[in-house]
Amino acid sequence: MPELPRWTFPGWPSAAAGERAAAVEAFAARDGALTKPAGSLGVLEALGRRLAHVQRDPRPQVRPAACLVFASDHPVAALGVSAYPVGVTRAMVANFVRGGAAASVLCKRAGLPLHVIDVGVAGPPVFADDRGGRYTRAGVADAAVGDLVTSDAMPPSTYRAALSAGAAAVAARLAAGPLRALVIGEMGIGNTTCAAAVTAALTGAAGADLDAVVGRGTGIDDATWARKRDVVATAVGRVRTILSADPDAAGHRALAALGGRELAAMVGAMAHAIERDVIVLVDGYIASAAALALCTIAPAAAAGLVFGHQSREPGHQRLLAALRAQPGDAVHARPLLDLDLALGEASGALLAFDLLDAACCLHDQMATFAEAAVPDREGR
Amino acid sequence: MPELPRWTFPGWPSAAAGERAAAVEAFAARDGALTKPAGSLGVLEALGRRLAHVQRDPRPQVRPAACLVFASDHPVAALGVSAYPVGVTRAMVANFVRGGAAASVLCKRAGLPLHVIDVGVAGPPVFADDRGGRYTRAGVADAAVGDLVTSDAMPPSTYRAALSAGAAAVAARLAAGPLRALVIGEMGIGNTTCAAAVTAALTGAAGADLDAVVGRGTGIDDATWARKRDVVATAVGRVRTILSADPDAAGHRALAALGGRELAAMVGAMAHAIERDVIVLVDGYIASAAALALCTIAPAAAAGLVFGHQSREPGHQRLLAALRAQPGDAVHARPLLDLDLALGEASGALLAFDLLDAACCLHDQMATFAEAAVPDREGR
Repeated sequence: MPELPRWTFPGWPSAAAGERAAAVEAFAARDGALTKPAGSLGVLEALGRRLAHVQRDPRPQVRPAACLVFASDHPVAALGVSAYPVGVTRAMVANFVRGGAAASVLCKRAGLPLHVIDVGVAGPPVFADDRGGRYTRAGVADAAVGDLVTSDAMPPSTYRAALSAGAAAVAARLAAGPLRALVIGEMGIGNTTCAAAVTAALTGAAGADLDAVVGRGTGIDDATWARKRDVVATAVGRVRTILSADPDAAGHRALAALGGRELAAMVGAMAHAIERDVIVLVDGYIASAAALALCTIAPAAAAGLVFGHQSREPGHQRLLAALRAQPGDAVHARPLLDLDLALGEASGALLAFDLLDAACCLHDQMATFAEAAVPDREGR
Repeated sequence: MPELPRWTFPGWPSAAAGERAAAVEAFAARDGALTKPAGSLGVLEALGRRLAHVQRDPRPQVRPAACLVFASDHPVAALGVSAYPVGVTRAMVANFVRGGAAASVLCKRAGLPLHVIDVGVAGPPVFADDRGGRYTRAGVADAAVGDLVTSDAMPPSTYRAALSAGAAAVAARLAAGPLRALVIGEMGIGNTTCAAAVTAALTGAAGADLDAVVGRGTGIDDATWARKRDVVATAVGRVRTILSADPDAAGHRALAALGGRELAAMVGAMAHAIERDVIVLVDGYIASAAALALCTIAPAAAAGLVFGHQSREPGHQRLLAALRAQPGDAVHARPLLDLDLALGEASGALLAFDLLDAACCLHDQMATFAEAAVPDREGR
């Protein structure tokens, strides 16, 4: 796939490095003057510095923000790897848009618009119109796909179209107005199998390590788990040689061979957002598998990603550890929450959005020692 | 102190046990019918069940809610155990009320009223009036106190008055209208020393274990830490025999001998709230030391407490482990957040309030499988 993008993220850390460093420095100076012991807000202060860096802004903000949920079905689901019937993907897309899903409730609570992008729900469009911008049927929804085991998840043409659909969703949101943060999640019966396969392929997991990246998904029994593990092992074995032959292209190849259209679309969306200084809040295992693929393609992207939570899926922990082991900015892959969640659909990232919001509010609104006439450490 | 309360929390688990169990059962039935895999919201679902139990309500809510911050100075601060001058307590009380502190910003963001109760700020009242209910100067503020090392933190009369001041603050809030949740925190230069002493005394920590409960507080240097450790060791050694002579009274005695008025007031406030089915969201190390004392006095209280976060203070981890080791409901002492915070003033609990709020919104507003016509696991 020589024609695929190799994102460079201008200014990360080259072109706009000075501007970003100045923003972080100004953020830190004000942070140190606020009425609290230095460093006492811990991770929130680190988050603020990240935001200042990504947004090139010493007074970072997370609003306006939006939530994008990418949805797709998967031929691999026909191999019996999930606890739920495939029709659930379609029904849940309708549920997202009508306001009844967890993501709908959390978006409403946080005051964020929820945009559902259908990149592969089987059958006709879920809605005939775009439901006021809340539902988008992307062209890739009817493209050719495969089951991972007997053929690639998608041919190169479908993969490129899915990447583009993700980027286009962010572009559409940016065309409607400014955007400071993007919350990204997914829906697709069968897609923890894809996430496990992508994770195994990109972290070189085999044998017991491979077993450890295959989780219970929506709650499968032992027999289904064994099938799922075999599917992942066979699929990864099928493409391992191709991936290791060209490490530079491994991220793209793993997504096309083992991913799904919503994973590819999330990669396109993340890259498009980061390139435009929009911070990306990544949801759980499946969204993180897309993030891992992106960081394999473009390690500098890691600085633009915040991981919302540690999922209950065992593979997620290994995936984030692999990201942290990468050089440079990937050390940021510390999940903000750890609440035994295993839902997806951006729910964990939406819960973590509150922490980014709080970090910005605190930095923006707290009084300084001087303003409040509070004595500092030295009793000034 | 034979005349001190030994709270029994009627209905925990005796009198209203049936009503509480029915509320939890109804909560769980609806939870299982919502459009998500069973258990996929992890800790949020467990939180919901806790709320249903405490509130005797199958559709629990966390609003109306309020935040109480109890503030006091400490003679022990004169022994050189803190990085900040004692005048900071007074200045920060003014900062809370005027809106410039972290707690002020987080309360405003969450839509919660912030009530500061001055139970011992040195000097005259910080404000001449009650600032529209935001500032209360409790009678105990001018009572007799000691430095832990040469004398008890307070005589029994002061201790009883501080307990009452805490209960009165909750009673005043309840008199103003219904209350579903209470966020409790503190401010007081020197009070991590008190928290460490109370924790060491109640967990039986000595030697290296005692060192491990003494942390860096607002950021002290090595010499200050060594002084603080010696103060804690001497203070705990002074009262250890008295405490072990009467384990039933150990919670009260530890607070009076080693605590501070804001710790005692927090205990009174927590007990008063829990007795009235108001869930209590506990902040960090110092508020948790008060919670530990309360649970020593009345183990059933643990079911009414939610711990907002794991503080950076090393003693907090040991304290929560001790709570989890208690029989019964104390297994709930799993902190919701872990963000390297070390600020106090209810800040960590206020951040965690979002999670309780989200848990209630999700349970209340999500659609069921039937409502949304989403196929369930068996494809119904």
